[in-house]
Amino acid sequence: MKVIPKTEVIYTLSPKHKPAERVEIGESILLQTEDAFGGQIRTEKDSIEKLDWSKVDGATGPVYVEGAKPGDTLVVDILDVHTDNKGLIATIPKSGILGYKPFKPATKVVQIRKGYVHFEKGIQLRTKPMIGTIGVTPKTETPTGTLGRHGGNMDFKELTAGTRLYLPVLVKGALFAAGDLHAVQADGELCVSAIETAGETKVRLSLIKNKQPELPVLETEAQFSILACGDTLDEAARFATEAAVQALLREHGWTFEKAYMFASLAVNLQINQVVDPKKGVRATISKDFISLDSLLT
Amino acid sequence: MKVIPKTEVIYTLSPKHKPAERVEIGESILLQTEDAFGGQIRTEKDSIEKLDWSKVDGATGPVYVEGAKPGDTLVVDILDVHTDNKGLIATIPKSGILGYKPFKPATKVVQIRKGYVHFEKGIQLRTKPMIGTIGVTPKTETPTGTLGRHGGNMDFKELTAGTRLYLPVLVKGALFAAGDLHAVQADGELCVSAIETAGETKVRLSLIKNKQPELPVLETEAQFSILACGDTLDEAARFATEAAVQALLREHGWTFEKAYMFASLAVNLQINQVVDPKKGVRATISKDFISLDSLLT
Repeated sequence: MKVIPKTEVIYTLSPKHKPAERVEIGESILLQTEDAFGGQIRTEKDSIEKLDWSKVDGATGPVYVEGAKPGDTLVVDILDVHTDNKGLIATIPKSGILGYKPFKPATKVVQIRKGYVHFEKGIQLRTKPMIGTIGVTPKTETPTGTLGRHGGNMDFKELTAGTRLYLPVLVKGALFAAGDLHAVQADGELCVSAIETAGETKVRLSLIKNKQPELPVLETEAQFSILACGDTLDEAARFATEAAVQALLREHGWTFEKAYMFASLAVNLQINQVVDPKKGVRATISKDFISLDSLLT
Repeated sequence: MKVIPKTEVIYTLSPKHKPAERVEIGESILLQTEDAFGGQIRTEKDSIEKLDWSKVDGATGPVYVEGAKPGDTLVVDILDVHTDNKGLIATIPKSGILGYKPFKPATKVVQIRKGYVHFEKGIQLRTKPMIGTIGVTPKTETPTGTLGRHGGNMDFKELTAGTRLYLPVLVKGALFAAGDLHAVQADGELCVSAIETAGETKVRLSLIKNKQPELPVLETEAQFSILACGDTLDEAARFATEAAVQALLREHGWTFEKAYMFASLAVNLQINQVVDPKKGVRATISKDFISLDSLLT
């Protein structure tokens, strides 16, 4: 299996980037990834204030997928997410959902052992390793820290091993990248960081030709989640709902009114993160009520 | 057990309302309730356009709890939520999260049988009977359809049998009321209604003296949810987070920075509903990390 080392880190997604690696359709690849702070913070004494902000939220890549063309869907099977045994979390003044309050920059380094994050004596959290940043390259150069239709820094805690992500291919070769692993994160990522770690993730990249999801879609065992973003949570919630109602219309041939009613009963609006310039909301629907076909057009 | 019939419906919570019933501390009571449309819609031909809007989102009560005083907490054990075998859902132009789109008023009547809502042939949803409106009386008269610190029309799908709700007593006797049962509702209640039904709910009312939650708190088997509302989802999310971080500070004696970090890892921000003038967001924390004591001050 091809391996991309974490030295192949990019801080923008750009159609002009030279591929770090090329894969055939259906090929698996291992990405070694740096943490969200670009490895600049090693101890609790390393200050967030001295951070080079051009080196955060990086991703490893890009990976050129042979045969991928705009109009296709890149199918990303997340096979494994393996974090380092050390992680860190930080508060950054003016950042996070309570950024309007006065508080200090602070860094906490934690050990990750045997499936638990050791926050402090007696306080352990079960790990749920996830990918913070994962996406294809949009038509115009975009920071990896941005989220959008192409994916990006979605910070959605269900982006874990065993799930499958559908992304719209927007440039030739897709130019896929991923990074910014979290050992654990709650819905919201309230203080602006989670347990940030270096690590590695194994993905299999394949294609669905000539159709695309309107927004990124994550498939888990029992459901599909449509991943929307907006300038506010309310806007993201509207976009997620519109996409879900349109998918229900396609699936069942219902009137708008009937699909809208059904969404009230079966589409769960949930929060991904509230702390990036673009907020993230997902619309989650059981596979009992929707099929992949209706999520791609 | 005392029973309050559904003719004792109120459309405002007011300290001036005469109690429909009085209970001792720890007493259970059965409330028979009308549906959210006040029983005005019986068939799919009954138009939403002719609705008397002063007769919607009613609640049965108020119940005077002997000994309840402002500054106390009313503890509501939801023992049973039993819906009728018929329910209805409606789209109302200009309403719901997609209210900016053009669509027609429509009503759908559904059968509720053997634990399922029969939406249409081949499309069934498992019921999860819940209470849409539940609260104590605020100091000033407030429509039952409003939500706030007193509870109200929270439309939170986990307000089900087996849960316990903590509400701040704001007037003498608490003057508790509940109604607006839903047979099933997803997070968001996107089209503005869920499966609305008449029915009955059994609750046990008790008190914790001289301390209160900042916002309503729902206890389930494994976690506590702090129920916030705001003019936008973003505002509701901030209020929910502030209350959760303050509770973590009290529980663990942490600095603000440490509590804020921990919230990123262990406090899940989730959506209750997005379709009332006040949007609802909950902050959910596992009982591994928070105790009731820290949620009351």
